[in-house]
Amino acid sequence: MAVLEINFCPSCGAAVEFRRPDDDNRPRHICIACGTIHYQNPKMVIGSIPEWEDKILLCRRAIEPRHGLWTLPGGFMENGETTSEAAIRETLEEANARIAIGDLYSMYSLPHANQVHLLFRATLLDLDFGPGPESLEVRLFGEEEVPWDEIAFRPIKYSLEHYFADRRKGQFSFHMGELSAPPRS
Amino acid sequence: MAVLEINFCPSCGAAVEFRRPDDDNRPRHICIACGTIHYQNPKMVIGSIPEWEDKILLCRRAIEPRHGLWTLPGGFMENGETTSEAAIRETLEEANARIAIGDLYSMYSLPHANQVHLLFRATLLDLDFGPGPESLEVRLFGEEEVPWDEIAFRPIKYSLEHYFADRRKGQFSFHMGELSAPPRS
Repeated sequence: MAVLEINFCPSCGAAVEFRRPDDDNRPRHICIACGTIHYQNPKMVIGSIPEWEDKILLCRRAIEPRHGLWTLPGGFMENGETTSEAAIRETLEEANARIAIGDLYSMYSLPHANQVHLLFRATLLDLDFGPGPESLEVRLFGEEEVPWDEIAFRPIKYSLEHYFADRRKGQFSFHMGELSAPPRS
Repeated sequence: MAVLEINFCPSCGAAVEFRRPDDDNRPRHICIACGTIHYQNPKMVIGSIPEWEDKILLCRRAIEPRHGLWTLPGGFMENGETTSEAAIRETLEEANARIAIGDLYSMYSLPHANQVHLLFRATLLDLDFGPGPESLEVRLFGEEEVPWDEIAFRPIKYSLEHYFADRRKGQFSFHMGELSAPPRS
């Protein structure tokens, strides 16, 4: 996700300049009329690993990027919610699935994309799930059924690899990592 | 921190309207000329608990809010960095202190403020620290010396309470919580 270009002050509509404020150590977009400083900061992408017995729930994407590939339910955290609420909401929106949130399981920083991805373990509360508008298909997968070559995003793939390895060990632990920009294809 | 008012398109400078996009479930600021949707999302505030033997490092704030009160080094995560890098940078900026990052220790959601606060345990690498421009004073504190009534922010206070309780138990574990708006004073 590219950073939005700021050419005009969202507050008053005047032009902005890109310079370092007096009490800051990096350049910001500053309005030449009202002086408002427009900060840009990373966004959080939050999802869940919905568990049902020995299976987990994956969604096949109906939207770009990565249309047709599989992922865990998740998306951008919204203002006014908690991290758990974001995971519950995204799981409901993308998979029509109700979950109880468990432990925080993974956190990946993607500095090239200005994103931090969080995944929570979660318990699926019933089997009455199905694709929301952003999913083509929603399915439970056992470890041996996971479509490893068709996982949409690296933080999801790596988290799932840790997840099944942890499960075989009988001990889940939190995983943290960082990912640089993928090679251009 | 209030959400910035968006009246004009930062991209093209035209007026924006606040309405629900066709494929969305909540209203957004949308440019009436170029159609760009301007999303607003929570920001991450990231800090460290710098440890030196049985003491931790606190900073006395030289800026508002909470001028003169004590806090752990931390601040808003910037674009282009990882969560660990943010904690290291903020600790260097506010306390001129070098740290090695340890485990993620706490995560608090503040939905009223559109913020998520993360704290990492960290090891102070040397004793050559001192106040940066945003600090009046930087000091090591043993548990019995912590100025509990002068801690600037609730996520810091609660994390430190967990921290010393965990230390007495001999076992540190990750803590997650959410905080609603404080009563107006």
